[in-house]
Amino acid sequence: MSGVLSDLTIRIGDVERVLPTVRTGNLGRVPLVEFIGDPEFTNAAAQAMLPLLPAGTEILLTVVTNALPLTHELSDRSGLPYVCARKKRRTYMQQPLIQDVPSLSLGVAETLWLDGPHAARLRGKRVAIVQDVVASGGTAQALAKFVVQAGGTVSGYLAAFRQGQPPMDVAVLQDLPRRVP
Amino acid sequence: MSGVLSDLTIRIGDVERVLPTVRTGNLGRVPLVEFIGDPEFTNAAAQAMLPLLPAGTEILLTVVTNALPLTHELSDRSGLPYVCARKKRRTYMQQPLIQDVPSLSLGVAETLWLDGPHAARLRGKRVAIVQDVVASGGTAQALAKFVVQAGGTVSGYLAAFRQGQPPMDVAVLQDLPRRVP
Repeated sequence: MSGVLSDLTIRIGDVERVLPTVRTGNLGRVPLVEFIGDPEFTNAAAQAMLPLLPAGTEILLTVVTNALPLTHELSDRSGLPYVCARKKRRTYMQQPLIQDVPSLSLGVAETLWLDGPHAARLRGKRVAIVQDVVASGGTAQALAKFVVQAGGTVSGYLAAFRQGQPPMDVAVLQDLPRRVP
Repeated sequence: MSGVLSDLTIRIGDVERVLPTVRTGNLGRVPLVEFIGDPEFTNAAAQAMLPLLPAGTEILLTVVTNALPLTHELSDRSGLPYVCARKKRRTYMQQPLIQDVPSLSLGVAETLWLDGPHAARLRGKRVAIVQDVVASGGTAQALAKFVVQAGGTVSGYLAAFRQGQPPMDVAVLQDLPRRVP
């Protein structure tokens, strides 16, 4: 029991958090990483991710929601601009790009939307994919497809945490257990 | 025409933006405020909002998505913690509070969710309601109901911009036109 708990203790710089575990659908208990509502943890993670930024990166691409304050901070601290995909179509979007993320657990795709004016900011740029937590890598792949669709190139993948074995190389701060007994 | 355009020029500190206008449903063209993807604008707004924080505020409450990086920054710069309501139920939520926001244009309610552990952070606290843009005030009222439900008190309302006439006093940086001819 204490072994499991220590897996869920995160220390980034001077900031320590013991992640809560939550029951989700048929997956059992999983650790929950929340940057929303925790600026101290968010800022520590953004600072620690700075040296992990892929060489040559010119702009960051992420997706709402939990990664948003993290990417805002990483953008602010690195001086690199960022673009954020959405999980809902907005009425104001102009010629948005669309990518589906297959869901392993339900077999239902989630759709990501990238507004046209934001996609245009990726054109000809070297783009780092930024996430809060990377697991199967499906979201990372969808974001990479946005980059190609928009006429950019992927400089690399970056996440605060990894849960599982995504198929691409991702620079992370720490691995987390995928499930908790 | 030039008069209309100047209404859409925002200057906050050293940062200037000319807001794009977008066609939305049956409302015609409206100015679009986007903090997501614009850390410079976000940080300038957060800095300018600091003196508008209601006296005695102990914690901030906002709602996803556009206000999230703004509130993260406002929290970071003020030293006040923040809590963020969601627009979708998450499987991991524990005894979430629920409030509906009536939509003026469609007559359909949008539902806001506040996870139980986050609601608990508002208990006994003086809470400022923070938004990116306040219009009808419906979202602000729903957030205020969360505060009461959670056992806190509302210290006041704060938004970067106001479009229209909400029924409560809201401290804002600037008024924006609600529609553009």
